[in-house]
Amino acid sequence: MNALGRHVLAEMYRCDPKALDNVERVRDIMVDAAVKAGAEVREVAFHKFSPQGVSGVVVISESHLAVHTWPEFGYAAVDVFTCGSAVNPWDAVNSIAESFSSKQVTASEMRRGVFFDANGERVAAG
Amino acid sequence: MNALGRHVLAEMYRCDPKALDNVERVRDIMVDAAVKAGAEVREVAFHKFSPQGVSGVVVISESHLAVHTWPEFGYAAVDVFTCGSAVNPWDAVNSIAESFSSKQVTASEMRRGVFFDANGERVAAG
Repeated sequence: MNALGRHVLAEMYRCDPKALDNVERVRDIMVDAAVKAGAEVREVAFHKFSPQGVSGVVVISESHLAVHTWPEFGYAAVDVFTCGSAVNPWDAVNSIAESFSSKQVTASEMRRGVFFDANGERVAAG
Repeated sequence: MNALGRHVLAEMYRCDPKALDNVERVRDIMVDAAVKAGAEVREVAFHKFSPQGVSGVVVISESHLAVHTWPEFGYAAVDVFTCGSAVNPWDAVNSIAESFSSKQVTASEMRRGVFFDANGERVAAG
């Protein structure tokens, strides 16, 4: 089934709380994951919350990577959206989980922009 | 069931292609949706692609709003992630769909950061 994009939502539990609360480190981890996956980084926007937590997004030519961290729970909510076949979103997710030293990850992939039939032909929705 | 966040993924078909290809307009629509939903805007990052299409994200205190547009298909992939109870992600999704003049929307909500039992007590995962 054809789709315009692949969107992986990952729950990263039991992460290193120090990594999750360091905005520069989180930004570097997300950008590094994008580059490792073969994506082209276009825009980067990260924010450190008080007393703790980081939110940020990397806009790539192939869509985006986003992260929200709860250091107090050792938890990071990550999503990676890619379009095209050149970048595999799971490569980025795996890189991020490893960088956060997550000991428990669950993830699922959603297909985005599906309006093709079983033969890959455009249907009316688009 | 308690969760740290609510993540709505919306497929917006049959949108106004002109709106989808105007980066300033898409940015304004996304920021306006965040504000209308009662969110606090922290960072904004948008990018216009050649020959067409816009990608962008609004980082809010409550998490993020993201959009990727395919004007050639009249399609926008939108996701809105909110934490806390003050902001309802569906308010933002509805605002965006209306602003894009989408005539066909499908959407689903994922609960993010679930590591509470049925009584709302923390379990080990976090």
